[in-house]
Amino acid sequence: MSLDRLIDAIKRTGNPSVAGLDPKLEYIPEYIVKTAFDEHGQTLEGAAEALWIYNKGIIDALCDIVPAVKPQAAYYEMYGWPGMRALALTIEYAKSKGMYVITDGKRNDIGSTMEAYASAHLGVTRVGSNKISAFGGDALTVNGYLGKDGIMPLLEVCKSFDSGIFVLVKTSNPSSGDLQDKIIEDRPVYYHMGQLCEEWGRMLPGKYGYSGVGAVVGATWPEQLSELRAQLPHTFFLVPGYGAQGGGAADVKGAFDNDGIGGVVNSSRAILCAWKKEGCAPEDYASAARREALRMKDDITAVID
Amino acid sequence: MSLDRLIDAIKRTGNPSVAGLDPKLEYIPEYIVKTAFDEHGQTLEGAAEALWIYNKGIIDALCDIVPAVKPQAAYYEMYGWPGMRALALTIEYAKSKGMYVITDGKRNDIGSTMEAYASAHLGVTRVGSNKISAFGGDALTVNGYLGKDGIMPLLEVCKSFDSGIFVLVKTSNPSSGDLQDKIIEDRPVYYHMGQLCEEWGRMLPGKYGYSGVGAVVGATWPEQLSELRAQLPHTFFLVPGYGAQGGGAADVKGAFDNDGIGGVVNSSRAILCAWKKEGCAPEDYASAARREALRMKDDITAVID
Repeated sequence: MSLDRLIDAIKRTGNPSVAGLDPKLEYIPEYIVKTAFDEHGQTLEGAAEALWIYNKGIIDALCDIVPAVKPQAAYYEMYGWPGMRALALTIEYAKSKGMYVITDGKRNDIGSTMEAYASAHLGVTRVGSNKISAFGGDALTVNGYLGKDGIMPLLEVCKSFDSGIFVLVKTSNPSSGDLQDKIIEDRPVYYHMGQLCEEWGRMLPGKYGYSGVGAVVGATWPEQLSELRAQLPHTFFLVPGYGAQGGGAADVKGAFDNDGIGGVVNSSRAILCAWKKEGCAPEDYASAARREALRMKDDITAVID
Repeated sequence: MSLDRLIDAIKRTGNPSVAGLDPKLEYIPEYIVKTAFDEHGQTLEGAAEALWIYNKGIIDALCDIVPAVKPQAAYYEMYGWPGMRALALTIEYAKSKGMYVITDGKRNDIGSTMEAYASAHLGVTRVGSNKISAFGGDALTVNGYLGKDGIMPLLEVCKSFDSGIFVLVKTSNPSSGDLQDKIIEDRPVYYHMGQLCEEWGRMLPGKYGYSGVGAVVGATWPEQLSELRAQLPHTFFLVPGYGAQGGGAADVKGAFDNDGIGGVVNSSRAILCAWKKEGCAPEDYASAARREALRMKDDITAVID
């Protein structure tokens, strides 16, 4: 009912990072794409098969050193229902390998509809007398623009299924300030959203002091990250923007508390495309991802200690 | 590149309403569910088949009198990838019957990821040398919390594919004010989000004066609806909250301009469950939906004239 399982996994691996599984076709070695196309044609099924084969290799290479993966729903959705099947297979496989899965969907809606998203991504769906896991992640990213009653159904499901959510607070993109930096009662919008995370999190307390309601805060805003760490003592951070988006280890330092916990840093492209950057054989893509993940681990843990 | 095709369809049918396709299994007559379960078992495939059969009946019954449908992605996603296949089939079928399709996904993310959502829902996905429509709606609801660069990729795709978006401005749910009503520079957050719609919409002008960037404004806030109509002269409104959520015809009047255009009112449960409310034979569910849709049309057009 909190993010304790994620924190346990971070402690076990000694690695506060998460591998973003955002597999564009152009990231995937040609031999994998060709095999998938040979079997399914240049179709959504073919593309989805390539994603799935590729992800399996990445998960196998990372599962003992990286605590979590974060598949980005959009990169599966763009391949239609076959892409969504690849997402479900990826989540199931990562969990079978002991990884914690954060589904990055940034879902949001009114309460009754959020019940459906909660079933889809964190709980189970009732079909007749069966209860079936549709996608079955351990945590889901959500957008809090609709306020409390869009969040409550998720918290109920988190309680029952020991899962968590991450609410967008200060996002990593350049224009995040268009709304998030505007001032309400002397404080930026993201501060208020952070306070809502603290409030909502009271329903899901955790053993490390962090609740089941985390916050997304971008590595591209190091100052705000430190500021929010101090303001939100019970809110665990998911930190995107490290690597390809420009954030470095020094930039994510502020996410962590004095015990060295409090955040998990995401890297997607740098890990997925490590084989291209290294210039190694395409067949070696998973080992290259592992090397980059280890480099990232060293990079981040060096600034926490 | 704007919402003109939607407005044309509203004019053609004389009906400024949209049928929300949010088909929970409990809304669907038992004989349809049984047929689907007999074929596929009590599985996600079985549930998705029931959704699809049910939706086809609703679309057949409404397509000559209602200009648009709005499938809510969550109710398909909760049935996993088979549910997403039912969504794709539903969208394709509604379009083949001449209806305008607003996919209600409230998607949002950073720019590069929004390109993927834009491909998924409004444009096409490249697979090898093919360009494939993954879901292929005419418009998509989105959440603007991330600001401009999460919106730009959608506008590019809207230009190319003559599609549109609806940005959440003032949502229909009770707690929408948690953030949306807070005051920034003497104006509520939703006002500022509305101004962003006007700004973004300049890229997609339309022949009726309304751009390709619409706004979601709930029927449950009639005062704000009228106020926003005056403040946002180029922004077309998608108005949820009529019917089951409590909004009536008088409450939606403010969405329309002096020419009687400017908004489209959604009803989901009242149409989908009309057969239950009427107490008619389950086999008559589609006719009951049609009767309710006609009643709603009369109800709304009476207050516009």
